[in-house]
Amino acid sequence: MEKILNKINNNSLQVGVIGLGYVGLPLAVSFATAGIRAIGFDVSVTKVDKVNAGNNYIQDIRPEQWSKVQELKTLSATTNFSLIARCDAVLICVPTPLDLFHKPDMRFIESACREIGKYLKSGTFVSLESTTYPTTTEHFVLPLLEEASGLTQGKDFWLAFSPERVDPGNKTYDTRNTPKVLGAMTAEGLTIGKAIYSKAIDQVYTVSSPKVAEMVKILENTYRLVNISLINEMALLSGKMGIDIWEVIEAAKTKPYGFQAFYPGPGIGGHCIPLDPFYLEYIAKKFNFDLTMIHTAGHIDMLMPHRATIKLSTALNRHKKPINGSKILFLGVAYKPDVDDERESPALKIMDIVAGKGGEVLYHDPFVATCTTPGGKSYSSSALTAKLLQSCDCVVVTTNHTCFDAAWILENSVLIVDLRNGIKVASEKVYKL
Amino acid sequence: MEKILNKINNNSLQVGVIGLGYVGLPLAVSFATAGIRAIGFDVSVTKVDKVNAGNNYIQDIRPEQWSKVQELKTLSATTNFSLIARCDAVLICVPTPLDLFHKPDMRFIESACREIGKYLKSGTFVSLESTTYPTTTEHFVLPLLEEASGLTQGKDFWLAFSPERVDPGNKTYDTRNTPKVLGAMTAEGLTIGKAIYSKAIDQVYTVSSPKVAEMVKILENTYRLVNISLINEMALLSGKMGIDIWEVIEAAKTKPYGFQAFYPGPGIGGHCIPLDPFYLEYIAKKFNFDLTMIHTAGHIDMLMPHRATIKLSTALNRHKKPINGSKILFLGVAYKPDVDDERESPALKIMDIVAGKGGEVLYHDPFVATCTTPGGKSYSSSALTAKLLQSCDCVVVTTNHTCFDAAWILENSVLIVDLRNGIKVASEKVYKL
Repeated sequence: MEKILNKINNNSLQVGVIGLGYVGLPLAVSFATAGIRAIGFDVSVTKVDKVNAGNNYIQDIRPEQWSKVQELKTLSATTNFSLIARCDAVLICVPTPLDLFHKPDMRFIESACREIGKYLKSGTFVSLESTTYPTTTEHFVLPLLEEASGLTQGKDFWLAFSPERVDPGNKTYDTRNTPKVLGAMTAEGLTIGKAIYSKAIDQVYTVSSPKVAEMVKILENTYRLVNISLINEMALLSGKMGIDIWEVIEAAKTKPYGFQAFYPGPGIGGHCIPLDPFYLEYIAKKFNFDLTMIHTAGHIDMLMPHRATIKLSTALNRHKKPINGSKILFLGVAYKPDVDDERESPALKIMDIVAGKGGEVLYHDPFVATCTTPGGKSYSSSALTAKLLQSCDCVVVTTNHTCFDAAWILENSVLIVDLRNGIKVASEKVYKL
Repeated sequence: MEKILNKINNNSLQVGVIGLGYVGLPLAVSFATAGIRAIGFDVSVTKVDKVNAGNNYIQDIRPEQWSKVQELKTLSATTNFSLIARCDAVLICVPTPLDLFHKPDMRFIESACREIGKYLKSGTFVSLESTTYPTTTEHFVLPLLEEASGLTQGKDFWLAFSPERVDPGNKTYDTRNTPKVLGAMTAEGLTIGKAIYSKAIDQVYTVSSPKVAEMVKILENTYRLVNISLINEMALLSGKMGIDIWEVIEAAKTKPYGFQAFYPGPGIGGHCIPLDPFYLEYIAKKFNFDLTMIHTAGHIDMLMPHRATIKLSTALNRHKKPINGSKILFLGVAYKPDVDDERESPALKIMDIVAGKGGEVLYHDPFVATCTTPGGKSYSSSALTAKLLQSCDCVVVTTNHTCFDAAWILENSVLIVDLRNGIKVASEKVYKL
């Protein structure tokens, strides 16, 4: 313990980050800008080559941060996991997706642990950052690491869980200034982990165990899933009652306490909200517990793309047109405004449904040049021109990127289904969710 | 319209407030302290006599406000509804409870409207403040008022909806400094209503219709119901997983965006959260719409007192005791800390269940001297002594009043079931929710 604390104190620590995605690379950069040597590990040669060539591919890393890292030369990347043997801290930032049956897919954590275990040297701090069900660190990661390394947690290495809290597109909070929760298996591990993370993160908040830290992240994202689903359901009822839900939300926001605004849309997307709560639902079964709120919220979310398609169908019907044979342009496939990420985006699901009904599907997204739907269809972003808008039977606003010029879109479109309240002007052409 | 605007401008307006409860009396006081003459109407002779005798009975009205009203002599109260004929503005603040089958009980609104209609003079502004389902103002209040008065809305009088936002016990936000949402039937009514309310309230936020304003209030309280139910369900699972949900919540609160903390407990209480969402559920049926989030949340809430009783039973069982014959002291029957209101309080429901199982039930609440349970049993608050605590087989913390001395309670109790995280110290004596 003395040894690693000394290294931390004199900044001679070597940090390894496993997974160079939207979580891992900013984390490695946060250490590297603080003068700590960081090695990024990834199985993708493309990502590793980009990092080593000085090319940033993560939207949230600011140019000045990236320049500083290049200047300090504190960041490198590799596909060679044997270099883990050089690391004093190993931080695991791999994806935790769901499989096709909405069950946790632990393959990435598992293979990361096996690789780490092979090369883990005594005296290393290991932390999992991937969102997962509570008890993963203790019951899944720990035995894998001990078996693969032959080392003993608490004696030879220290294991912890510290959930990533990256919010892509957030201009205020980045990896450094977002407080970080940390729970370790032992008191020693907590002390060491806090000292390490404090190099890269302004505020480290410790909790009593990894499973508490695991539950923290799930609570945060379950809160979001449940509230987005609630407002989507309220939006659907409001639509039937002739009430503009966006007007309701703006007014409710004037309440100075006890309310937080969420906004409706065609469903939830991204890498967190549609997935994390179902990790909890999975482990709850083991405890004979039925998480009815998550289940209900998930059900609403699952149906939203279909409800959105019904809105489209209703709108086209007013123009005496069916979906079959109509030309439909989707504006925005990213899962939220101003990000370049279309993972789990509801827009893609709607595109599949509409294409399946014989609609001619096009999309435009300034941040996503090409995309592949869950149904396996590939599309390229069309150039957004007045002529294109005029040629479409309906334009569907699926993501409200701030660069979209609502007045111009309204002027040039025949019919608009606005699932995001992007076109704020009242018009007979516009059908809101 | 000119006439009423002139009266507003020169403060010669006479405001009538129907219902002198926790909403109506503070509202009348807010006008009266601003120098506007306010008449409070209530069917309760007791309340009217208290107001006229200068005796305040609402905890949230501050002594200096009350003194100012006495000094200005701008507030009076009456049971004589014919005095409505003197009022330029009539603000309806009557209760909207649920009946035994959880359906809206509109009797108070209905009788208020009939009384107002009898005496309504031309040129009066009428506003409903009671929380109710969207469309109530237009489809329920309007026909009643027009029929009873023979006057026409928009011509002879103006009708609006402006939801009360009273948060009992809130030391920061009172009637005056909480922004108020207002939706009227006509543009004229909106102008007049805003001018009137602005005398008593700092910020009046206008919306396009009464039904939007009605939905605003329901959204605010549905948000709370859903989130309290979510955290209760998370607490129950966490309990099974050996995770302290309160520790989880404190850590999640370090997230500086996109999270708002709610706390678990034995269920929801008070006059708003357990009722308002079910008003929306009621009207949704008319639109063939099933509000699954509210339904699920309501189900969780309905079961919480039973789950709490199971915790009690489990705790007693460890001491080889059954509920039958055990002496159980409930600490706090108010529905939330530091208020004197036990309406819909889950504590009362648990007391009924425990008494039904043969438990000897006592309670202590410094703010509630006597109470009657939904089952019809009446209790008086016991004096809280060390001897009493020592004599009980179990103490159940049902409300975490800030005046409760946790260390002293812990010291003197044999066994504690803590449903509110009131006893923060870890102890073998304490069973948390």
